[in-house]
Amino acid sequence: MGITVQKFGGSSVGDAARIRRVAQLIVDAKRAGNHVISVVSARGDLTDELIVLSQQVSTTPPRREMDMLLSTGEQQSVALLAMAVDALGEEAISFAGAQIGIVTDSFHTKAKIKNIDPTRIIEALEAGKIAIVAGFQGVDENSNLTTLGRGGSDTTAVALAAVLNADVCEIYTDVDGIYTADPRIVADARKIERLSYDEMLELASLGAQVMQARSIEFAKKYDVAIHVRSSFNNTIGTYIVREAAEMEGIVVSGAAVSKDEAKIALRGVPDKPGIAASILGGFASHNINVDVIIQNTSEAGLADMSLTVSKADLPDARSVAEALVVDLGASGFECDENIAKLSVVGIGMRSHTGVAERMFSALAEEGINIQMISTSEIKISVVVDEGLADKALMAVHRAFDLQNSPF
Amino acid sequence: MGITVQKFGGSSVGDAARIRRVAQLIVDAKRAGNHVISVVSARGDLTDELIVLSQQVSTTPPRREMDMLLSTGEQQSVALLAMAVDALGEEAISFAGAQIGIVTDSFHTKAKIKNIDPTRIIEALEAGKIAIVAGFQGVDENSNLTTLGRGGSDTTAVALAAVLNADVCEIYTDVDGIYTADPRIVADARKIERLSYDEMLELASLGAQVMQARSIEFAKKYDVAIHVRSSFNNTIGTYIVREAAEMEGIVVSGAAVSKDEAKIALRGVPDKPGIAASILGGFASHNINVDVIIQNTSEAGLADMSLTVSKADLPDARSVAEALVVDLGASGFECDENIAKLSVVGIGMRSHTGVAERMFSALAEEGINIQMISTSEIKISVVVDEGLADKALMAVHRAFDLQNSPF
Repeated sequence: MGITVQKFGGSSVGDAARIRRVAQLIVDAKRAGNHVISVVSARGDLTDELIVLSQQVSTTPPRREMDMLLSTGEQQSVALLAMAVDALGEEAISFAGAQIGIVTDSFHTKAKIKNIDPTRIIEALEAGKIAIVAGFQGVDENSNLTTLGRGGSDTTAVALAAVLNADVCEIYTDVDGIYTADPRIVADARKIERLSYDEMLELASLGAQVMQARSIEFAKKYDVAIHVRSSFNNTIGTYIVREAAEMEGIVVSGAAVSKDEAKIALRGVPDKPGIAASILGGFASHNINVDVIIQNTSEAGLADMSLTVSKADLPDARSVAEALVVDLGASGFECDENIAKLSVVGIGMRSHTGVAERMFSALAEEGINIQMISTSEIKISVVVDEGLADKALMAVHRAFDLQNSPF
Repeated sequence: MGITVQKFGGSSVGDAARIRRVAQLIVDAKRAGNHVISVVSARGDLTDELIVLSQQVSTTPPRREMDMLLSTGEQQSVALLAMAVDALGEEAISFAGAQIGIVTDSFHTKAKIKNIDPTRIIEALEAGKIAIVAGFQGVDENSNLTTLGRGGSDTTAVALAAVLNADVCEIYTDVDGIYTADPRIVADARKIERLSYDEMLELASLGAQVMQARSIEFAKKYDVAIHVRSSFNNTIGTYIVREAAEMEGIVVSGAAVSKDEAKIALRGVPDKPGIAASILGGFASHNINVDVIIQNTSEAGLADMSLTVSKADLPDARSVAEALVVDLGASGFECDENIAKLSVVGIGMRSHTGVAERMFSALAEEGINIQMISTSEIKISVVVDEGLADKALMAVHRAFDLQNSPF
């Protein structure tokens, strides 16, 4: 008998009607001859409601108590879903993270899984039951409830698939799969059949918010086959799998735009060894994630240092930049919120040349100026004016012929 | 340092403002120099909302899953309350039932506490923290979440007070304490200063719904001093304590009326040994609780058997009565919903005579007919016409001079 792990997000279980529909999907998978483990998130708006309540009682709620509060959301979901499955005539048993030994570290609100004891799940499966598991949550070694941070239910699902050696980890969502670009922007964007973990990782960090990056890293590490698919239909979605030789033929798999970026430029920084490390260290010590980084030497002995941060971090980043200007004796800094990051991703880049050139030409033809460039082995990102971002995405999508299947 | 256990019901933590007020009460108790453990119920309407949701996904939700669902209510309360206490500058730590080893049997939705491991609470108290504990819930020996049934948070509080050897278990409620009669009916009803466990047990089962009977039995067994008091003011409420010699001087401590009763009379039952047992067994086997029972011999060899059940059980009780009439060869049965049970309670009855006489005279003076009489060692109950119940309560209250303090 095959083992299927399924993950349903909060919008899939937002009300009683949706819970009943998800229950039917679960029962179908079971009756198709599989052992089924379903991982569920908190109902749609519940988490937001609880956060509002917490803010009404405290301006600085302790993280441990936030975890205690928010982890009730998934617990409600699994109980309700187990009832709905039971009502369809299949036996189900719900589990909170603590009950199946999902042991994490103690970093409340963003804990990492250290260990899972699958004994109770295996017992339930062998007894013919469907296991309904609370995503997003665990316990530390002192039984304090923890949560895994944004998108943590994906991580729970992938981790369970790994530890149970499941055939597939199905991520149910409200889209049909991963597209070559956001179909709301690029009308002829095409659903991708297969992606490597590395490509999905790059896309995930670029605004294709179907899965949390950490869960994909986990899947790559333990070689868990992921199937991103819609909970509204039976269409095959996108498989995210171990890299195979034939994938190399596809130079660019997808493109994405992230508008959640802001640029900070430090001007006239004395250009001496260790200065870049000081600057990055300054941001890191305030928990600000720096993305694209560019250093230009301007005048003799002075450098300009540009970097991007998420818009949410900009207020903190400004304070850091102010302090750095003083500490380093730089001449000043500028911020720009009206930028966007456009990226193309593909493992074929490793063995193909001319990808950057084709991308830059396409942008030039549209008269779009490139402000910053950053590359990795399988990704090229450029920073452009936010107002031109959609136009840029369409141009690049066309330039790489992404609307047509490579096969 | 004294140990105070406090219990706050669902209406006390119904919204953010109330949670903050309860937090202040908790902090006050701590700053008065006590170790404080606060037991909390689910927020006001949350439990009802969750029950509605469960009914929308299943007409017969499994009890295990109901417990999984409903136990989230207290977990939210303790997290929010711990945040609110923290915001007032005292350290607090919240605990779900499972986290402090409240081990119960496996009777979901009405489990009984088997054991409590106070280690974590004691550690928290010794570290100067306030322990905020989820009432109403525990885990069975297989880590399945359980709930303790109606009023279960009282039981949690009393059990913790017992195991921690607390000085007092404060039950916060929306009234000032236990009154000699319902002040909404008897204008000059008086707050009782001290009651014995047995008296409170009788009153609890008579409609003084301040505490669950089971929790009082628990308190009696472990000699836990209970203080029923208002969460709206600082007034001293009613202490429920071990019986003391001076309490014997008070013949009647309080009076109560229960209108949630119905009468069933079986007519012409053959009067032979074992017939009463058959009748009671018939009701018991349908889980119908029979309260007052009266047997009269009417004609030669035939008896009338009257009993009271709760109004909610009447439809079931009718079916049982129908079957019994056939089985026993009785002549028929009658039901009457328009009755009420009036009771007076007092441990002084054990050593004083004439209590029943005084009660019956008071009723006779008001022209109130007594339909049934039932007595225990410390209680006399009569069944009267429902429309006359309030008048009867006032007459009895006056007859025993309950408006005046006995001290």
